[in-house]
Amino acid sequence: MGENKRQMHLNVFIMNVGHHEAAWRRTDTEPRRITDLSYYAELAREAEEAKFDSLFLADGLAVSRNVKHGFQSGLEPFTLLSALAAVTKKIGLIGTVSTTFNEPFHVARKFASLDHISNGRAGWNIVTSGSDLEAANFHKEAHLQHAKRYERAKEFLDVAVKLWDSWEDDALVVDRESGVFADDRKVRAIDHGGSWFHVRGPLNVPRTPQGYPVLVQAGSSEDGKEFAAEFAEAIFTAQQTLEDGQRFYSDVKGRLLKYGRHHDSLKILPGICPIIAPTEEEAKEKERLLNELTVPAYGLHQLSQMVGIDLSQYPLDGPLPELPPVDVINGNKSRFQLVADLAKREQLTLRQLTHRLAGGRGHRVFAGTAVQVADQLEEWFQLGAADGFNVMPPFLPGGLTEFAREVVPELQRRGLFRTEYDSGTLRGHYGLPRPENRWAASEVDRYKEVSL
Amino acid sequence: MGENKRQMHLNVFIMNVGHHEAAWRRTDTEPRRITDLSYYAELAREAEEAKFDSLFLADGLAVSRNVKHGFQSGLEPFTLLSALAAVTKKIGLIGTVSTTFNEPFHVARKFASLDHISNGRAGWNIVTSGSDLEAANFHKEAHLQHAKRYERAKEFLDVAVKLWDSWEDDALVVDRESGVFADDRKVRAIDHGGSWFHVRGPLNVPRTPQGYPVLVQAGSSEDGKEFAAEFAEAIFTAQQTLEDGQRFYSDVKGRLLKYGRHHDSLKILPGICPIIAPTEEEAKEKERLLNELTVPAYGLHQLSQMVGIDLSQYPLDGPLPELPPVDVINGNKSRFQLVADLAKREQLTLRQLTHRLAGGRGHRVFAGTAVQVADQLEEWFQLGAADGFNVMPPFLPGGLTEFAREVVPELQRRGLFRTEYDSGTLRGHYGLPRPENRWAASEVDRYKEVSL
Repeated sequence: MGENKRQMHLNVFIMNVGHHEAAWRRTDTEPRRITDLSYYAELAREAEEAKFDSLFLADGLAVSRNVKHGFQSGLEPFTLLSALAAVTKKIGLIGTVSTTFNEPFHVARKFASLDHISNGRAGWNIVTSGSDLEAANFHKEAHLQHAKRYERAKEFLDVAVKLWDSWEDDALVVDRESGVFADDRKVRAIDHGGSWFHVRGPLNVPRTPQGYPVLVQAGSSEDGKEFAAEFAEAIFTAQQTLEDGQRFYSDVKGRLLKYGRHHDSLKILPGICPIIAPTEEEAKEKERLLNELTVPAYGLHQLSQMVGIDLSQYPLDGPLPELPPVDVINGNKSRFQLVADLAKREQLTLRQLTHRLAGGRGHRVFAGTAVQVADQLEEWFQLGAADGFNVMPPFLPGGLTEFAREVVPELQRRGLFRTEYDSGTLRGHYGLPRPENRWAASEVDRYKEVSL
Repeated sequence: MGENKRQMHLNVFIMNVGHHEAAWRRTDTEPRRITDLSYYAELAREAEEAKFDSLFLADGLAVSRNVKHGFQSGLEPFTLLSALAAVTKKIGLIGTVSTTFNEPFHVARKFASLDHISNGRAGWNIVTSGSDLEAANFHKEAHLQHAKRYERAKEFLDVAVKLWDSWEDDALVVDRESGVFADDRKVRAIDHGGSWFHVRGPLNVPRTPQGYPVLVQAGSSEDGKEFAAEFAEAIFTAQQTLEDGQRFYSDVKGRLLKYGRHHDSLKILPGICPIIAPTEEEAKEKERLLNELTVPAYGLHQLSQMVGIDLSQYPLDGPLPELPPVDVINGNKSRFQLVADLAKREQLTLRQLTHRLAGGRGHRVFAGTAVQVADQLEEWFQLGAADGFNVMPPFLPGGLTEFAREVVPELQRRGLFRTEYDSGTLRGHYGLPRPENRWAASEVDRYKEVSL
């Protein structure tokens, strides 16, 4: 194995007490600590010790209707990631922020601030928010249509990047003698006027260590894939089989060329929920026990949300009823398709389907030994289905500890994963370039007078 | 001096490299560190070591037109305060957030998150944003009229408090045996529909250690004082003379009764920018040297913004020209009045006026020995002008160090300030009660069915 062997990227997706919906019923989880910084700090340090590229916090802007049997939210990403920046040194910090119910000035500014605070470790998972429950917290009766959400997301991102470019890297002068603090030719209004936003700028935060956060995307619909191919630098995706993973990988990578982008400029990270035990049998038993702890009403509720049908009246041991066509779904279209395909391919009952989805909400669950998990990751990585993985521990902290201490060393032994950080920024970990400021390239524009 | 002697509260207002507009030209300040967490962490630890009640970050949502000679912004408060929460243990963390260009769901949520992260140390300085520059970053050509801004602020706060009350203190059940995670009778939609906002709720963060953040207010106009009397638990205010301070104090305290509030339920904290040296002469010289470092064009620009007139064409050594009446001012009305009064009372030239404002932008500047500073604070505190002070170091870190190591011990010797924290929360430091959840009091409403 050579020095320059291609290595995989690993992100850990931290959510409450783990991704399995019954994780909180295991006695080794600590559900009352989901609002404690110390809990997340322990997880972040464990992941950093294992040299993960990044940790990731998902987000939603509403409480689910089924708060009785499980809680999908805890702390808000900007605040929690900033606090974690203060107690870690190397690991990247990725947070979900919606473009649908936010303002680009606020979001660009908070990411700029987080990137400074973390010395260049910020990443933004760009989502478009797909539920009426969220809309109802922001004055709307229903949420935006799928295509409109992506239209807005594009303009939102355009404004954000303009704001991040509004300070050149060397705009701060700090000449005490002459009294010049900043070179005001290098701090520019953006004067954006579009269909969705009017923003004058400049941002009130100077250019950040990374230029701007790593742009991550997690939608796998047609709109989502196209958005990713145009803008994203990493993509989280749910893929159930190697073949699906390969198809998705080559589909998305194939779209890069038309945007003038290089194959390596976008990292594809399928989700994996690994259930690890010393033997395969023990791992399967561990998975079975976790599934047995699920509350059927909760699982059905979650499934109902994914497929857009109220399933509470259907028999648990019967089949999934006929689903509406995907084009009428205004939520997460790709997740809908995945569930429909899964139920059909494996002829699952509702109960079986809820168990299959309990671990990763559509992300792949794999139960086996640490070596078997490493084999799976290596296979996907070598066979063109992944540049790395979004690791989703089924329960926390144990599921992360097992992966960090058993699977990661195995991957390191195989030369597939770093043994030390060789960079201090998230862009560095993922091998992504620091974006050049749009104004830095042009000497003509550089000194254009822009009134502030 | 008895055990129960009334003690003052001290907040440190941290801004860039200090409050004096020429602070960055002193060679002992570090202007290039204003985007470094380590810089703020050092300041926060110094303040915590001195047992300050809290530290405070102001905020604005635009870059000033005069970025060349001074920079008014650095990092965003939610992100920076969250990071500081991770590196401190006791000191309160107060941030400015505008009600004009934000959504109550986002703001309530981030403060709830910060309050959890800090274990009950969050405070919210509620401002209404008063500049067209800010409006232009949020799709508006001009900002809202003064009275409208306060109308919106009231409804914003109403929604926020409802959201903070949407989880009862004991809503989390976490019964692993029965599979009940939360008592859904204690997690309620708020169904707010008003003139400005429609928000369904509940919040997606459980009830926080303090119930909700300490509510701080910093406007001293008629609207501002009335808003403070109705809602605020602490108020930052700029008062130039003892008499003005006493008048303001009794005015605001006098308004509490009609809202059924106790005299002690609102703490009044005038700003003080202390310039400290071993002798009075040295302190005055230190002040003079700082004033000499100001850039006249910058000072005039700042003054122009305060009074709503472009002063750049007026002679620096001539008088302030006639000002428009206060009722046509749509910015900071109370600061306008303060400047007008100051210029008239002391018959100052424009240059003298910019020097008087250079240290604290209208807040009181006092140059003297540590004992003289302590005397001043004691006088205001004992003579009914203050419950404590908003300490605004003219330059940082030195100005804070001097205050913390020379003035604080003097106040402690006099029994006027704590020598140890006896509480872990910001409410505790200020002697403010933890607000009861609106639903906790009523057994009838408590079990009202609310559909989620």
